[in-house]
Amino acid sequence: VRTPDGPAGDQKQDAKSVLSRALRIFDTFDDNHSELRLSDIARRAELPLSTVHRLVGELVAWGGLERTRDHYRVGLRIFELGTIAPSWEQRRNAALPYMQDLYEATHESVHLGVLDGPDIVYLLKISGHQSRVPTRTGGRRPAHCTSLGKAILAFSSRAVQDDLVEKGLEAQTERSIIRPSAFYEDLALVRERGVAYDNQESVPGLACVAAPILDRDALPVAAVSVSGPHVRVNTQALAPALRAAALAISRNLANASPTRTAR
Amino acid sequence: VRTPDGPAGDQKQDAKSVLSRALRIFDTFDDNHSELRLSDIARRAELPLSTVHRLVGELVAWGGLERTRDHYRVGLRIFELGTIAPSWEQRRNAALPYMQDLYEATHESVHLGVLDGPDIVYLLKISGHQSRVPTRTGGRRPAHCTSLGKAILAFSSRAVQDDLVEKGLEAQTERSIIRPSAFYEDLALVRERGVAYDNQESVPGLACVAAPILDRDALPVAAVSVSGPHVRVNTQALAPALRAAALAISRNLANASPTRTAR
Repeated sequence: VRTPDGPAGDQKQDAKSVLSRALRIFDTFDDNHSELRLSDIARRAELPLSTVHRLVGELVAWGGLERTRDHYRVGLRIFELGTIAPSWEQRRNAALPYMQDLYEATHESVHLGVLDGPDIVYLLKISGHQSRVPTRTGGRRPAHCTSLGKAILAFSSRAVQDDLVEKGLEAQTERSIIRPSAFYEDLALVRERGVAYDNQESVPGLACVAAPILDRDALPVAAVSVSGPHVRVNTQALAPALRAAALAISRNLANASPTRTAR
Repeated sequence: VRTPDGPAGDQKQDAKSVLSRALRIFDTFDDNHSELRLSDIARRAELPLSTVHRLVGELVAWGGLERTRDHYRVGLRIFELGTIAPSWEQRRNAALPYMQDLYEATHESVHLGVLDGPDIVYLLKISGHQSRVPTRTGGRRPAHCTSLGKAILAFSSRAVQDDLVEKGLEAQTERSIIRPSAFYEDLALVRERGVAYDNQESVPGLACVAAPILDRDALPVAAVSVSGPHVRVNTQALAPALRAAALAISRNLANASPTRTAR
Protein backbone atom coordinates (compact mmCIF):
# COMPACT_ATOMS: atom_id res chain seq x y z
CA VAL A 1 0.00 0.00 0.00
CA ARG A 2 1.46 3.29 -1.02
CA THR A 3 0.41 6.53 0.64
CA PRO A 4 0.67 9.68 -1.47
CA ASP A 5 3.66 11.86 -0.56
CA GLY A 6 1.72 15.08 -0.17
CA PRO A 7 -1.27 17.09 -1.33
CA ALA A 8 -1.40 16.82 -5.11
CA GLY A 9 -0.90 20.04 -7.02
CA ASP A 10 0.93 21.85 -4.21
CA GLN A 11 4.53 21.38 -5.11
CA LYS A 12 5.98 23.65 -2.38
CA GLN A 13 4.09 21.79 0.31
CA ASP A 14 5.13 18.50 -1.23
CA ALA A 15 8.78 19.47 -1.43
CA LYS A 16 8.76 20.45 2.21
CA SER A 17 7.11 17.25 3.33
CA VAL A 18 9.58 15.09 1.39
CA LEU A 19 12.53 16.68 3.19
CA SER A 20 10.81 16.48 6.56
CA ARG A 21 10.22 12.77 5.94
CA ALA A 22 13.89 12.21 5.25
CA LEU A 23 14.81 14.10 8.42
CA ARG A 24 12.35 11.98 10.41
CA ILE A 25 14.28 8.96 9.17
CA PHE A 26 17.45 10.37 10.77
CA ASP A 27 15.49 11.06 13.95
CA THR A 28 14.67 7.36 14.34
CA PHE A 29 18.33 6.71 15.24
CA ASP A 30 19.57 7.28 18.77
CA ASP A 31 21.84 5.66 21.37
CA ASN A 32 19.37 2.84 21.98
CA HIS A 33 18.47 2.46 18.29
CA SER A 34 21.77 2.69 16.48
CA GLU A 35 21.05 -0.12 13.99
CA LEU A 36 17.57 -0.42 12.52
CA ARG A 37 15.77 -2.53 9.92
CA LEU A 38 13.70 -0.79 7.24
CA SER A 39 10.54 -1.89 9.04
CA ASP A 40 11.82 -0.42 12.35
CA ILE A 41 12.55 2.88 10.64
CA ALA A 42 9.10 2.95 9.03
CA ARG A 43 7.40 2.23 12.35
CA ARG A 44 9.46 4.74 14.36
CA ALA A 45 9.13 7.47 11.71
CA GLU A 46 5.45 6.68 11.16
CA LEU A 47 5.99 6.51 7.41
CA PRO A 48 4.86 3.97 4.79
CA LEU A 49 7.47 1.29 4.13
CA SER A 50 7.59 2.17 0.43
CA THR A 51 8.44 5.81 1.21
CA VAL A 52 11.09 4.73 3.71
CA HIS A 53 12.55 2.27 1.22
CA ARG A 54 12.93 4.97 -1.41
CA LEU A 55 14.32 7.70 0.89
CA VAL A 56 16.69 5.34 2.73
CA GLY A 57 18.05 4.22 -0.65
CA GLU A 58 18.91 7.79 -1.51
CA LEU A 59 20.42 8.48 1.92
CA VAL A 60 22.60 5.37 1.58
CA ALA A 61 23.77 6.49 -1.88
CA TRP A 62 24.78 9.85 -0.39
CA GLY A 63 26.56 8.28 2.62
CA GLY A 64 24.20 9.56 5.30
CA LEU A 65 23.16 6.00 6.14
CA GLU A 66 25.10 2.76 5.79
CA ARG A 67 23.71 -0.70 5.18
CA THR A 68 24.99 -3.76 7.03
CA ARG A 69 23.11 -6.88 5.95
CA ASP A 70 19.47 -6.07 6.73
CA HIS A 71 20.23 -3.21 9.12
CA TYR A 72 20.94 0.47 8.59
CA ARG A 73 23.03 2.85 10.69
CA VAL A 74 24.16 6.47 10.51
CA GLY A 75 26.95 6.83 7.96
CA LEU A 76 30.47 8.20 8.01
CA ARG A 77 29.37 11.19 5.90
CA ILE A 78 27.25 12.47 8.81
CA PHE A 79 30.17 12.04 11.24
CA GLU A 80 32.39 14.05 8.88
CA LEU A 81 29.78 16.78 8.33
CA GLY A 82 29.29 17.12 12.07
CA THR A 83 32.95 17.95 12.59
CA ILE A 84 32.89 20.91 10.17
CA ALA A 85 30.90 23.34 12.35
CA PRO A 86 33.51 26.04 13.03
CA SER A 87 32.35 27.03 16.49
CA TRP A 88 32.54 23.52 17.99
CA GLU A 89 35.78 22.80 16.19
CA GLN A 90 37.38 25.98 17.59
CA ARG A 91 36.30 25.14 21.12
CA ARG A 92 37.58 21.57 20.87
CA ASN A 93 40.91 22.71 19.46
CA ALA A 94 41.37 25.39 22.11
CA ALA A 95 40.47 22.98 24.92
CA LEU A 96 42.14 19.71 23.93
CA PRO A 97 45.73 20.39 25.09
CA TYR A 98 44.53 21.58 28.51
CA MET A 99 42.11 18.66 28.75
CA GLN A 100 45.06 16.34 28.10
CA ASP A 101 46.95 18.01 30.97
CA LEU A 102 43.96 17.52 33.28
CA TYR A 103 43.74 13.89 32.22
CA GLU A 104 47.44 13.32 32.80
CA ALA A 105 47.24 14.96 36.22
CA THR A 106 44.16 13.02 37.36
CA HIS A 107 43.69 9.98 35.10
CA GLU A 108 39.95 10.63 35.41
CA SER A 109 37.39 11.44 32.67
CA VAL A 110 37.67 14.97 31.26
CA HIS A 111 34.71 16.55 29.42
CA LEU A 112 34.10 19.61 27.28
CA GLY A 113 30.42 20.57 27.07
CA VAL A 114 28.13 23.24 25.66
CA LEU A 115 24.60 24.23 26.65
CA ASP A 116 21.88 23.29 24.13
CA GLY A 117 18.40 24.11 25.40
CA PRO A 118 17.96 22.36 28.76
CA ASP A 119 20.83 19.96 28.08
CA ILE A 120 24.59 19.74 28.09
CA VAL A 121 26.02 18.27 24.87
CA TYR A 122 29.49 16.76 25.24
CA LEU A 123 31.74 18.12 22.48
CA LEU A 124 34.58 15.91 23.67
CA LYS A 125 35.26 13.31 26.32
CA ILE A 126 38.70 11.94 27.02
CA SER A 127 39.25 9.12 29.44
CA GLY A 128 41.53 6.23 30.28
CA HIS A 129 41.38 2.67 31.52
CA GLN A 130 39.93 3.60 34.90
CA SER A 131 36.90 5.40 33.49
CA ARG A 132 33.43 3.96 34.02
CA VAL A 133 31.70 7.33 33.58
CA PRO A 134 28.51 6.79 31.49
CA THR A 135 29.01 9.71 29.11
CA ARG A 136 30.30 9.96 25.55
CA THR A 137 31.34 12.50 22.96
CA GLY A 138 28.12 13.62 21.28
CA GLY A 139 25.91 12.53 24.18
CA ARG A 140 23.65 14.81 26.21
CA ARG A 141 22.39 15.12 29.79
CA PRO A 142 20.03 17.51 31.63
CA ALA A 143 22.20 20.58 32.33
CA HIS A 144 20.89 21.42 35.79
CA CYS A 145 22.25 18.21 37.34
CA THR A 146 25.73 18.40 35.86
CA SER A 147 28.76 20.42 36.93
CA LEU A 148 29.27 21.50 33.28
CA GLY A 149 25.69 22.76 33.07
CA LYS A 150 25.84 24.63 36.36
CA ALA A 151 29.21 26.19 35.47
CA ILE A 152 27.68 27.58 32.24
CA LEU A 153 24.30 28.55 33.73
CA ALA A 154 25.87 30.41 36.67
CA PHE A 155 27.54 32.81 34.23
CA SER A 156 24.56 33.01 31.85
CA SER A 157 21.89 35.72 31.92
CA ARG A 158 19.03 35.49 34.38
CA ALA A 159 16.72 34.98 31.37
CA VAL A 160 18.57 31.81 30.37
CA GLN A 161 18.47 30.52 33.97
CA ASP A 162 14.75 31.33 34.36
CA ASP A 163 13.93 29.66 31.06
CA LEU A 164 15.56 26.44 32.22
CA VAL A 165 13.94 26.55 35.67
CA GLU A 166 10.50 27.22 34.16
CA LYS A 167 10.80 24.10 32.01
CA GLY A 168 11.09 22.16 35.26
CA LEU A 169 14.11 20.71 37.09
CA GLU A 170 13.73 16.97 36.88
CA ALA A 171 15.56 14.79 39.40
CA GLN A 172 18.20 12.43 38.00
CA THR A 173 19.23 11.04 41.40
CA GLU A 174 17.98 11.60 44.95
CA ARG A 175 20.69 14.27 45.31
CA SER A 176 19.62 16.35 42.27
CA ILE A 177 18.81 19.95 43.17
CA ILE A 178 15.27 20.46 41.86
CA ARG A 179 13.81 23.16 44.12
CA PRO A 180 14.14 26.48 42.18
CA SER A 181 15.27 28.53 45.21
CA ALA A 182 17.95 25.96 46.10
CA PHE A 183 19.04 25.86 42.46
CA TYR A 184 19.47 29.65 42.25
CA GLU A 185 21.42 29.57 45.55
CA ASP A 186 23.68 26.90 44.10
CA LEU A 187 24.31 29.01 40.98
CA ALA A 188 25.20 32.00 43.22
CA LEU A 189 27.79 29.83 44.96
CA VAL A 190 29.20 28.74 41.57
CA ARG A 191 29.59 32.39 40.53
CA GLU A 192 31.35 33.14 43.83
CA ARG A 193 33.71 30.13 43.64
CA GLY A 194 34.29 30.08 39.91
CA VAL A 195 33.67 26.31 39.84
CA ALA A 196 30.60 24.09 39.94
CA TYR A 197 30.31 20.75 41.73
CA ASP A 198 28.09 17.78 40.99
CA ASN A 199 27.99 15.58 44.05
CA GLN A 200 26.12 12.52 42.73
CA GLU A 201 23.39 14.81 41.34
CA SER A 202 23.51 13.36 37.83
CA VAL A 203 24.68 9.77 38.34
CA PRO A 204 24.80 7.88 41.66
CA GLY A 205 28.39 7.50 42.88
CA LEU A 206 29.77 10.08 40.45
CA ALA A 207 31.46 13.33 41.52
CA CYS A 208 32.35 16.13 39.09
CA VAL A 209 33.90 19.59 39.16
CA ALA A 210 33.68 22.07 36.27
CA ALA A 211 34.72 25.61 35.37
CA PRO A 212 33.24 27.86 32.68
CA ILE A 213 35.01 28.89 29.47
CA LEU A 214 34.19 32.55 28.83
CA ASP A 215 34.43 34.63 25.66
CA ARG A 216 35.73 38.22 25.45
CA ASP A 217 32.39 39.55 26.67
CA ALA A 218 32.62 37.25 29.72
CA LEU A 219 29.77 35.11 28.39
CA PRO A 220 30.07 31.33 28.86
CA VAL A 221 30.54 29.42 25.59
CA ALA A 222 31.44 26.02 27.10
CA ALA A 223 32.74 24.40 30.29
CA VAL A 224 35.38 21.84 31.14
CA SER A 225 35.04 19.18 33.86
CA VAL A 226 36.74 16.25 35.58
CA SER A 227 34.52 13.35 36.69
CA GLY A 228 35.08 10.14 38.59
CA PRO A 229 33.87 7.93 41.44
CA HIS A 230 33.08 10.11 44.45
CA VAL A 231 35.12 7.82 46.69
CA ARG A 232 38.21 8.44 44.57
CA VAL A 233 37.90 11.99 43.22
CA ASN A 234 38.47 14.92 45.59
CA THR A 235 36.58 17.58 43.64
CA GLN A 236 37.54 20.43 46.01
CA ALA A 237 41.23 19.68 45.63
CA LEU A 238 40.80 19.73 41.84
CA ALA A 239 38.94 23.07 41.76
CA PRO A 240 42.06 25.25 41.24
CA ALA A 241 43.24 23.00 38.38
CA LEU A 242 39.85 23.31 36.67
CA ARG A 243 39.77 27.09 37.10
CA ALA A 244 43.31 27.42 35.73
CA ALA A 245 42.51 25.18 32.75
CA ALA A 246 39.29 27.08 31.97
CA LEU A 247 41.13 30.42 32.11
CA ALA A 248 43.81 29.10 29.76
CA ILE A 249 41.21 27.68 27.34
CA SER A 250 39.24 30.97 27.40
CA ARG A 251 42.43 32.89 26.50
CA ASN A 252 43.32 30.33 23.84
CA LEU A 253 39.84 30.62 22.30
CA ALA A 254 39.91 34.42 22.32
CA ASN A 255 43.21 34.32 20.43
CA ALA A 256 41.79 31.81 17.94
CA SER A 257 38.84 34.03 16.98
CA PRO A 258 40.30 37.23 15.53
CA THR A 259 37.14 39.33 15.46
CA ARG A 260 34.19 39.71 17.81
CA THR A 261 31.72 39.17 15.02
CA ALA A 262 33.31 35.89 14.01
CA ARG A 263 32.00 33.88 16.93
CA VAL B 1 12.36 33.54 -10.72
CA ARG B 2 11.31 30.12 -9.49
CA THR B 3 12.50 26.97 -11.18
CA PRO B 4 10.17 23.99 -10.92
CA ASP B 5 11.34 21.35 -8.45
CA GLY B 6 11.02 18.41 -10.82
CA PRO B 7 9.16 16.97 -13.78
CA ALA B 8 5.48 17.68 -13.22
CA GLY B 9 3.25 14.70 -12.69
CA ASP B 10 6.05 12.33 -11.61
CA GLN B 11 5.84 12.40 -7.86
CA LYS B 12 8.46 9.69 -7.23
CA GLN B 13 10.98 11.52 -9.36
CA ASP B 14 10.09 14.78 -7.69
CA ALA B 15 10.41 13.38 -4.17
CA LYS B 16 13.83 12.02 -4.99
CA SER B 17 15.06 15.26 -6.44
CA VAL B 18 13.87 17.30 -3.45
CA LEU B 19 15.90 15.15 -1.07
CA SER B 20 18.92 15.19 -3.36
CA ARG B 21 18.72 19.01 -3.41
CA ALA B 22 18.73 19.14 0.39
CA LEU B 23 21.74 16.80 0.47
CA ARG B 24 23.54 19.00 -2.05
CA ILE B 25 23.07 21.85 0.41
CA PHE B 26 24.98 19.85 3.05
CA ASP B 27 27.65 19.08 0.44
CA THR B 28 28.40 22.80 0.00
CA PHE B 29 29.99 22.84 3.47
CA ASP B 30 33.58 21.73 3.97
CA ASP B 31 36.72 22.73 5.87
CA ASN B 32 37.26 25.76 3.66
CA HIS B 33 33.57 26.67 3.51
CA SER B 34 32.33 26.19 7.05
CA GLU B 35 30.17 29.36 7.12
CA LEU B 36 28.16 30.27 4.03
CA ARG B 37 25.60 32.87 3.00
CA LEU B 38 22.39 31.74 1.28
CA SER B 39 23.76 33.04 -2.02
CA ASP B 40 27.01 31.07 -1.54
CA ILE B 41 25.02 27.91 -0.87
CA ALA B 42 22.85 28.47 -3.95
CA ARG B 43 25.90 29.04 -6.16
CA ARG B 44 27.85 26.08 -4.80
CA ALA B 45 24.85 23.72 -4.91
CA GLU B 46 23.79 25.04 -8.35
CA LEU B 47 20.25 25.55 -7.09
CA PRO B 48 17.85 28.51 -7.41
CA LEU B 49 18.01 30.91 -4.44
CA SER B 50 14.30 30.41 -3.73
CA THR B 51 14.73 26.63 -3.47
CA VAL B 52 17.76 27.05 -1.21
CA HIS B 53 15.92 29.56 0.97
CA ARG B 54 13.06 27.12 1.52
CA LEU B 55 15.18 24.00 2.14
CA VAL B 56 17.70 25.80 4.37
CA GLY B 57 14.79 27.10 6.46
CA GLU B 58 13.61 23.58 7.05
CA LEU B 59 17.12 22.30 7.81
CA VAL B 60 17.59 25.11 10.36
CA ALA B 61 14.26 24.25 12.03
CA TRP B 62 15.43 20.64 12.33
CA GLY B 63 18.88 21.61 13.70
CA GLY B 64 20.93 20.36 10.74
CA LEU B 65 22.05 23.90 9.98
CA GLU B 66 22.48 26.89 12.29
CA ARG B 67 22.10 30.54 11.43
CA THR B 68 24.54 33.18 12.68
CA ARG B 69 23.57 36.63 11.42
CA ASP B 70 23.60 36.22 7.62
CA HIS B 71 25.69 33.03 7.57
CA TYR B 72 24.81 29.37 7.97
CA ARG B 73 26.88 26.53 9.35
CA VAL B 74 26.42 22.83 10.09
CA GLY B 75 24.34 22.38 13.25
CA LEU B 76 24.84 20.56 16.52
CA ARG B 77 22.16 18.00 15.50
CA ILE B 78 24.46 16.69 12.76
CA PHE B 79 27.39 16.47 15.20
CA GLU B 80 25.20 14.44 17.57
CA LEU B 81 23.83 12.17 14.82
CA GLY B 82 27.36 11.50 13.60
CA THR B 83 28.39 10.12 16.98
CA ILE B 84 25.62 7.50 17.03
CA ALA B 85 27.06 5.16 14.38
CA PRO B 86 27.80 2.06 16.48
CA SER B 87 30.84 0.83 14.57
CA TRP B 88 32.80 4.08 14.88
CA GLU B 89 31.72 4.57 18.47
CA GLN B 90 32.89 1.06 19.39
CA ARG B 91 36.26 1.62 17.75
CA ARG B 92 36.75 4.98 19.46
CA ASN B 93 35.79 3.55 22.85
CA ALA B 94 38.06 0.55 22.47
CA ALA B 95 40.98 2.71 21.34
CA LEU B 96 40.77 5.81 23.55
CA PRO B 97 42.42 4.50 26.76
CA TYR B 98 45.38 3.09 24.79
CA MET B 99 45.62 6.28 22.73
CA GLN B 100 45.82 8.23 26.00
CA ASP B 101 48.69 5.98 27.11
CA LEU B 102 50.51 6.60 23.81
CA TYR B 103 49.94 10.34 24.22
CA GLU B 104 51.23 10.30 27.79
CA ALA B 105 54.31 8.31 26.76
CA THR B 106 55.15 10.52 23.76
CA HIS B 107 53.28 13.85 24.08
CA GLU B 108 52.85 13.69 20.30
CA SER B 109 49.63 13.59 18.24
CA VAL B 110 47.81 10.24 18.35
CA HIS B 111 45.28 9.31 15.64
CA LEU B 112 42.66 6.64 15.09
CA GLY B 113 41.69 6.26 11.43
CA VAL B 114 39.54 4.12 9.14
CA LEU B 115 39.76 3.54 5.40
CA ASP B 116 36.96 5.13 3.33
CA GLY B 117 37.47 4.68 -0.40
CA PRO B 118 40.91 6.08 -1.27
CA ASP B 119 41.10 8.11 1.96
CA ILE B 120 41.78 7.79 5.65
CA VAL B 121 39.10 9.39 7.83
CA TYR B 122 40.28 10.35 11.32
CA LEU B 123 37.78 9.00 13.87
CA LEU B 124 39.75 10.63 16.68
CA LYS B 125 42.81 12.79 17.15
CA ILE B 126 44.28 13.56 20.54
CA SER B 127 47.14 15.98 20.95
CA GLY B 128 48.77 18.40 23.33
CA HIS B 129 50.44 21.78 23.38
CA GLN B 130 53.36 20.68 21.22
CA SER B 131 51.22 19.50 18.32
CA ARG B 132 51.32 21.33 15.03
CA VAL B 133 50.11 18.35 13.01
CA PRO B 134 47.59 19.58 10.37
CA THR B 135 44.94 16.90 10.95
CA ARG B 136 41.66 16.88 12.85
CA THR B 137 38.96 14.52 14.06
CA GLY B 138 36.60 14.08 11.11
CA GLY B 139 39.21 15.13 8.55
CA ARG B 140 40.47 12.97 5.66
CA ARG B 141 43.69 12.43 3.73
CA PRO B 142 44.74 10.22 0.79
CA ALA B 143 45.39 6.83 2.41
CA HIS B 144 48.41 5.78 0.34
CA CYS B 145 50.60 8.57 1.78
CA THR B 146 49.73 8.05 5.44
CA SER B 147 51.02 5.51 7.94
CA LEU B 148 47.40 4.79 9.00
CA GLY B 149 46.41 4.10 5.40
CA LYS B 150 49.37 1.86 4.70
CA ALA B 151 48.85 -0.05 7.97
CA ILE B 152 45.26 -0.83 6.93
CA LEU B 153 45.98 -1.47 3.24
CA ALA B 154 48.86 -3.86 3.98
CA PHE B 155 46.43 -6.19 5.77
CA SER B 156 43.58 -5.69 3.30
CA SER B 157 42.80 -7.97 0.37
CA ARG B 158 44.75 -7.61 -2.85
CA ALA B 159 41.47 -6.44 -4.47
CA VAL B 160 41.27 -3.46 -2.09
CA GLN B 161 44.92 -2.60 -2.74
CA ASP B 162 44.56 -2.92 -6.53
CA ASP B 163 41.43 -0.79 -6.51
CA LEU B 164 43.31 2.02 -4.75
CA VAL B 165 46.35 1.75 -6.99
CA GLU B 166 44.20 1.75 -10.14
CA LYS B 167 42.61 5.03 -9.08
CA GLY B 168 46.10 6.53 -9.17
CA LEU B 169 48.61 7.31 -6.41
CA GLU B 170 48.84 11.06 -6.30
CA ALA B 171 51.93 12.64 -4.71
CA GLN B 172 51.35 14.75 -1.58
CA THR B 173 55.02 15.57 -1.06
CA GLU B 174 58.18 14.79 -3.03
CA ARG B 175 58.65 11.75 -0.78
CA SER B 176 55.21 10.20 -1.50
CA ILE B 177 55.43 6.68 -2.88
CA ILE B 178 53.49 6.83 -6.13
CA ARG B 179 55.05 4.11 -8.32
CA PRO B 180 52.75 1.04 -8.03
CA SER B 181 55.60 -1.48 -7.74
CA ALA B 182 57.29 0.57 -5.00
CA PHE B 183 53.95 0.92 -3.23
CA TYR B 184 53.29 -2.85 -3.24
CA GLU B 185 56.84 -3.42 -1.94
CA ASP B 186 56.21 -0.95 0.86
CA LEU B 187 52.99 -2.77 1.80
CA ALA B 188 54.89 -6.08 1.89
CA LEU B 189 57.35 -4.51 4.34
CA VAL B 190 54.45 -3.27 6.48
CA ARG B 191 53.01 -6.80 6.63
CA GLU B 192 56.41 -8.17 7.62
CA ARG B 193 57.07 -5.53 10.32
CA GLY B 194 53.51 -5.12 11.60
CA VAL B 195 53.88 -1.33 11.48
CA ALA B 196 53.75 1.29 8.72
CA TYR B 197 55.92 4.39 8.49
CA ASP B 198 55.23 7.71 6.82
CA ASN B 199 58.52 9.55 6.42
CA GLN B 200 57.31 12.98 5.21
CA GLU B 201 55.17 11.27 2.55
CA SER B 202 51.99 13.09 3.49
CA VAL B 203 53.17 16.40 4.97
CA PRO B 204 56.71 17.85 4.68
CA GLY B 205 58.56 17.58 8.00
CA LEU B 206 56.07 15.11 9.49
CA ALA B 207 56.96 11.55 10.55
CA CYS B 208 54.34 8.96 11.55
CA VAL B 209 54.20 5.34 12.62
CA ALA B 210 50.99 3.25 12.66
CA ALA B 211 49.79 -0.27 13.43
CA PRO B 212 46.60 -1.98 12.23
CA ILE B 213 43.65 -2.86 14.45
CA LEU B 214 42.35 -6.26 13.34
CA ASP B 215 39.01 -7.96 13.93
CA ARG B 216 38.52 -11.63 14.81
CA ASP B 217 38.93 -12.61 11.18
CA ALA B 218 42.28 -10.76 11.09
CA LEU B 219 40.81 -8.09 8.81
CA PRO B 220 41.86 -4.47 9.45
CA VAL B 221 39.01 -2.28 10.78
CA ALA B 222 41.11 0.76 11.76
CA ALA B 223 44.67 1.79 12.61
CA VAL B 224 46.33 3.83 15.34
CA SER B 225 49.29 6.18 14.79
CA VAL B 226 51.67 8.61 16.47
CA SER B 227 52.77 11.65 14.45
CA GLY B 228 55.18 14.51 15.01
CA PRO B 229 58.05 16.53 13.56
CA HIS B 230 60.55 14.15 11.94
CA VAL B 231 63.41 15.86 13.79
CA ARG B 232 61.78 15.03 17.13
CA VAL B 233 59.93 11.75 16.65
CA ASN B 234 61.92 8.51 16.42
CA THR B 235 59.31 6.39 14.63
CA GLN B 236 61.39 3.18 14.77
CA ALA B 237 61.76 3.45 18.54
CA LEU B 238 57.98 3.90 18.83
CA ALA B 239 57.12 0.88 16.63
CA PRO B 240 56.84 -1.65 19.52
CA ALA B 241 54.59 0.73 21.47
CA LEU B 242 52.29 1.09 18.45
CA ARG B 243 52.15 -2.65 17.86
CA ALA B 244 51.37 -3.31 21.51
CA ALA B 245 48.65 -0.63 21.57
CA ALA B 246 47.09 -1.97 18.36
CA LEU B 247 47.06 -5.52 19.72
CA ALA B 248 45.40 -4.34 22.94
CA ILE B 249 42.80 -2.31 21.03
CA SER B 250 42.06 -5.26 18.72
CA ARG B 251 41.48 -7.48 21.76
CA ASN B 252 39.39 -4.79 23.44
CA LEU B 253 37.25 -4.40 20.32
CA ALA B 254 36.76 -8.17 19.94
CA ASN B 255 35.48 -8.31 23.52
CA ALA B 256 33.17 -5.34 22.93
CA SER B 257 31.40 -6.99 19.97
CA PRO B 258 29.77 -10.15 21.33
CA THR B 259 28.83 -11.75 18.02
CA ARG B 260 30.53 -12.00 14.67
CA THR B 261 27.44 -10.83 12.85
CA ALA B 262 27.14 -7.71 14.98
CA ARG B 263 29.98 -5.83 13.36
